[in-house]
Amino acid sequence: MTDPHAPIRSGIPEHGRVPKYYAVKTRLEAVLDELGEGGLLPTERELAATFEVARETVRQALRELLIQGRVRRKGRGTVVAGPKLEQPLSLASYTEGVRRQGRVPSRHLITLERLAADPVLARELRIAAGDEVWHMERVLLADEERVGLESTYLSVARLPHLERDFAPDSSFYVYLRDKAGLELMSADERIETVLATPREALLIGTPPALPMLLLHRTSRDGGGVPVERVRSLYRGDRFSFTTQMSKK
Amino acid sequence: MTDPHAPIRSGIPEHGRVPKYYAVKTRLEAVLDELGEGGLLPTERELAATFEVARETVRQALRELLIQGRVRRKGRGTVVAGPKLEQPLSLASYTEGVRRQGRVPSRHLITLERLAADPVLARELRIAAGDEVWHMERVLLADEERVGLESTYLSVARLPHLERDFAPDSSFYVYLRDKAGLELMSADERIETVLATPREALLIGTPPALPMLLLHRTSRDGGGVPVERVRSLYRGDRFSFTTQMSKK
Repeated sequence: MTDPHAPIRSGIPEHGRVPKYYAVKTRLEAVLDELGEGGLLPTERELAATFEVARETVRQALRELLIQGRVRRKGRGTVVAGPKLEQPLSLASYTEGVRRQGRVPSRHLITLERLAADPVLARELRIAAGDEVWHMERVLLADEERVGLESTYLSVARLPHLERDFAPDSSFYVYLRDKAGLELMSADERIETVLATPREALLIGTPPALPMLLLHRTSRDGGGVPVERVRSLYRGDRFSFTTQMSKK
Repeated sequence: MTDPHAPIRSGIPEHGRVPKYYAVKTRLEAVLDELGEGGLLPTERELAATFEVARETVRQALRELLIQGRVRRKGRGTVVAGPKLEQPLSLASYTEGVRRQGRVPSRHLITLERLAADPVLARELRIAAGDEVWHMERVLLADEERVGLESTYLSVARLPHLERDFAPDSSFYVYLRDKAGLELMSADERIETVLATPREALLIGTPPALPMLLLHRTSRDGGGVPVERVRSLYRGDRFSFTTQMSKK
């Protein structure tokens, strides 16, 4: 792709290399700071006139600001967005993380089905390939705004009454603890950035190909036996993840 | 943006809603699996003929596969990429994390300068606004491939001889421990996805507007005093982050 031995000069000359839309984006960011959260931006036409550029140039700058979550659409206008939610990476649930930030969490059930585990999933859940698993898919909301999509896989043998006992708009971890007597004691997580598929974009209500944060999680009980395999997709323009580390 | 009360049906009908390029992308993914890592893809023209679609449709599918790190450019061709690097979120350095995966880490110094701390940085480093800080910017490499860009801010009063004593292509954490007697005992991290700026894209050698993973870190010594404020930008198509959690 690039030659790693190409000379990299200190203080790369930025002049003459910055695309025009990016210069507009930088000036727009100053406008956003002045307007403050919730402030309404001038129209594309007005911005193009102010900055003396083509409307397409303004549109490209706004598109990046939208992807980054600096602005959001509101009705037919565009307003300054608030800061990203900071979700702690922890054994606590989505519910708890969102509440801690003073927001109201909720979920919409999309799918609850029984599947036969493929070999990869079977290994992750430490069951036999072909064994039945629950697949539960829920849209995650914060203050009624759709912010993510979560797919959870669990052994049916371990939670035979899930369909009957669990209210899918409630906290799943509370259900596990109170109804199934399962406490999650450890977990492995992997975080990456991916593009939403058209179906995911539709369910979460984002523009297609918006960068998302994807969390893969395997949680285990006190005996180290895997309880769930989770794939959580969060809007990259609305979420960040935080963690604390320390040496013993 | 979206009405959260709009009905969300189970098993959203996907037929007739999937854009044509996405159907091509899905078929291409099967081709990639068959070819295996390093395998050379047919040309755009050949793929367009095989799938009976316009070349622009193939190009859009390839663009997403490139952004996601499923394929990469090699010379004038496109080959199947390897899996993303898995960097542990830990107090260990970039150097250690990359070595653990059997890759050779290195760094190129871009900038080493003294700046006056602005009020935000001063608060994060627990120094006075206007106090001098080092700003060190390095391109991160793994097996000679540029994979990230790291900006570190440190108090000059605390590390007065940095410029003289530190070999900028070596491990900074080894320097801190062995030369400055500073051991990092705890850290706060925040992870988000952002777009590379044109300058960052140029330095890392990525296409502009590639989604990146951005880590903000503040590390502290044994007394809880902040030592460094770091902003690490990693290629979203090449990196993922892993962490383990457990209840005591």
